[in-house]
Amino acid sequence: MPGRPRAIVVVSGSELVRGQRRDLNGPYLAGELQRLGLEPAKVVIVGDRPEDLAAALHDGLAADVCIATGGLGPTHDDRTIELLARETGRRLAVDPALELEIEAVSRRIADRLRLPYADFAAGVRKQASLPVGAVSLGLAGTAPGVLLEREGRIAIALPGPPAELRRLWPLAVAHPAFRDVVGRARPRHHRVLRFFGPSESAVARALDEAGSEGNGLEVTVCARELEIHVDLFFEEGARARAAGIEAALLEEFAARLFSEDERPLAAIVIDLARSAGVTLATAESCTGGLLGAALTEVAGASDAYLGGVVAYANEVKTGQLGVPEDVIRRHGAVSGEVAAAMAEGARRVFRADVAAAVTGIAGPGGASPGKPVGLVHVHVAAPGGGEARRLDLPGDREAVRARASALTLHLLRRVLSRSGAEAA
Amino acid sequence: MPGRPRAIVVVSGSELVRGQRRDLNGPYLAGELQRLGLEPAKVVIVGDRPEDLAAALHDGLAADVCIATGGLGPTHDDRTIELLARETGRRLAVDPALELEIEAVSRRIADRLRLPYADFAAGVRKQASLPVGAVSLGLAGTAPGVLLEREGRIAIALPGPPAELRRLWPLAVAHPAFRDVVGRARPRHHRVLRFFGPSESAVARALDEAGSEGNGLEVTVCARELEIHVDLFFEEGARARAAGIEAALLEEFAARLFSEDERPLAAIVIDLARSAGVTLATAESCTGGLLGAALTEVAGASDAYLGGVVAYANEVKTGQLGVPEDVIRRHGAVSGEVAAAMAEGARRVFRADVAAAVTGIAGPGGASPGKPVGLVHVHVAAPGGGEARRLDLPGDREAVRARASALTLHLLRRVLSRSGAEAA
Repeated sequence: MPGRPRAIVVVSGSELVRGQRRDLNGPYLAGELQRLGLEPAKVVIVGDRPEDLAAALHDGLAADVCIATGGLGPTHDDRTIELLARETGRRLAVDPALELEIEAVSRRIADRLRLPYADFAAGVRKQASLPVGAVSLGLAGTAPGVLLEREGRIAIALPGPPAELRRLWPLAVAHPAFRDVVGRARPRHHRVLRFFGPSESAVARALDEAGSEGNGLEVTVCARELEIHVDLFFEEGARARAAGIEAALLEEFAARLFSEDERPLAAIVIDLARSAGVTLATAESCTGGLLGAALTEVAGASDAYLGGVVAYANEVKTGQLGVPEDVIRRHGAVSGEVAAAMAEGARRVFRADVAAAVTGIAGPGGASPGKPVGLVHVHVAAPGGGEARRLDLPGDREAVRARASALTLHLLRRVLSRSGAEAA
Repeated sequence: MPGRPRAIVVVSGSELVRGQRRDLNGPYLAGELQRLGLEPAKVVIVGDRPEDLAAALHDGLAADVCIATGGLGPTHDDRTIELLARETGRRLAVDPALELEIEAVSRRIADRLRLPYADFAAGVRKQASLPVGAVSLGLAGTAPGVLLEREGRIAIALPGPPAELRRLWPLAVAHPAFRDVVGRARPRHHRVLRFFGPSESAVARALDEAGSEGNGLEVTVCARELEIHVDLFFEEGARARAAGIEAALLEEFAARLFSEDERPLAAIVIDLARSAGVTLATAESCTGGLLGAALTEVAGASDAYLGGVVAYANEVKTGQLGVPEDVIRRHGAVSGEVAAAMAEGARRVFRADVAAAVTGIAGPGGASPGKPVGLVHVHVAAPGGGEARRLDLPGDREAVRARASALTLHLLRRVLSRSGAEAA
């Protein structure tokens, strides 16, 4: 969208660029920038080589906002601030107030470790050295977050550990220079439409027919775990066009719409159960606990979720869930009959109103004639009757398990919302 | 390490640069490049703007290997191939054999959707157009992976969906031009040392004292979920120095060494149980299924893992695991006593040899005087007696749950390896 201030995120860390650890800061900052109405134009991950970091900063500093993460530590390998000074043509100078602040923290660390403060002094001086004109945003440990304004553009350096970065980030956002940049972004509205069921290409085709992007309207379609997530970002002047696109989508897919906000699917399920005063239980074979883990990731899940059984071995299905042995013998552990018996068993033993069960073959082993890898049976047992699905899921073990868990959550959502107006 | 061929990964996708979906291809390719002995120098994520993608490709093409992911689809928004041609100064030309191949796939899709093939013809022609001199590596759907060699440097374009990328990647690696680049890398050895317990700074200090990097030796330390993971990469000529560093680390931390390979922690636990002929069960409160999910992520977990109970509500702890009500009343649900009773209960009801239990306060709610968020009790019950831990874990709900699960796996590992030579 033309006119939005552009932001570039520069992430440094050799273990990140080598794929040994996954970068969490780039996606976090990109989402934050997007939320503030800026355009996250690029995320660059570089290693510890000074020339690579310098080149990435040089490039990033051309944007309205450049955010560098990592490389703020006390040792000579931590070069972000030094290179930020060099690339902006400024010299480094010790900030005396900042030095006192870092010294206080370091003295406490020295005391705790029973080391002389002298061991820390050089590091403190290094971490208190900022490019002339830059300001500290506050400390994370001994590392300051740093903001530098130059001709309406700003550069920000934040620590690499995600928890520290997230603590200092609001201080950067609150800084007047940052607020000025955000103020240059024309405010945008955001509509979320989440569909379960249609293919990504069907939604893309409907969007193509509904009208075009640009001139203050941006539409993105993203398929994830069997859900099609549509974001409409629009300026006030494009409201009517955005509404037209939304209407066209709903005309075709209204029955598939299941959410107009960004809550995780499991949170939608917990909220539906909570507001209906319904308790939940789970019985999992191939997902091995993923479903319970997803539900309990929601803070306050205990309002509705009682618990579950991971019934991996057949003896657990019979012993803990009361699945009759002959049902397993006749139909096999991966069958609609066993899924139904697991769900009914979970309802009974947990005294839950609604229970979801999933049994399947995640692979790579375990397939048999007529029962390929990816075959999954899901069953939701509820007072008004159950719902069952037989799924043939593509992908490897991890993908089959993740999709089986997501589809079970969708089936739970559907059963829980049946009493309401929704029929996705 | 000087002399290693450098690789740059260019990831395109607007939902990736905005943080709406996490990029999986960059970390995957970086790890693969590292494994092949190349240096992953940079991972760049850009959105759909042609000028941003062009600039990133321009930069990437200066490296020995440039890998672009995404933007290979049939529509005009998919510009990777077009920009690759432009940035290498080549024109696009239809590859007739490739066009026939894509046409065959598209005709099948058209038949299935009952659409005329004519709807697809333009897209087929677009996807069969390659920069002059480039070759197809094979199709993912209708999109070809593409390799272009120029003066000893290679550029590769792969589809964005991770599963498709991973399917075509080995075909790129096997291409003679890629093998030539890999052959220019001096072969490196790789040693992995994984420690449980010491702080990252203690390991870093020991490494500093043990000798220096460079000249064919590269050492990285990475802390993740309570584990310190040390990688030693070294050329043949640096073998003695690498061995010296390893010896120095082991002198200080041998008792903390728990693995010399990259198996996931849960796979180590399953392997230990399998080789000891021991069966496992779990009883989870605050982790809500994460522990079971981690164990069952291991292919073949059913050799050792029987199942578990997610005992979220207190009635499940008493009803399913036989935790005495008065133990909960006297000590609270988050207590060492309840953790022990949960573990013993799981051993009993699952008839398992060893059972692990975890109960804690993941937050943000649920804290009470003396029981803060992050308090977690873990207990492993085993024939030779149990092991228990009281943990005070930092972080938010997600972090507390992940760490509690990881620590429980470490305690399981410790109990299972007690009979062996290991004492980490």
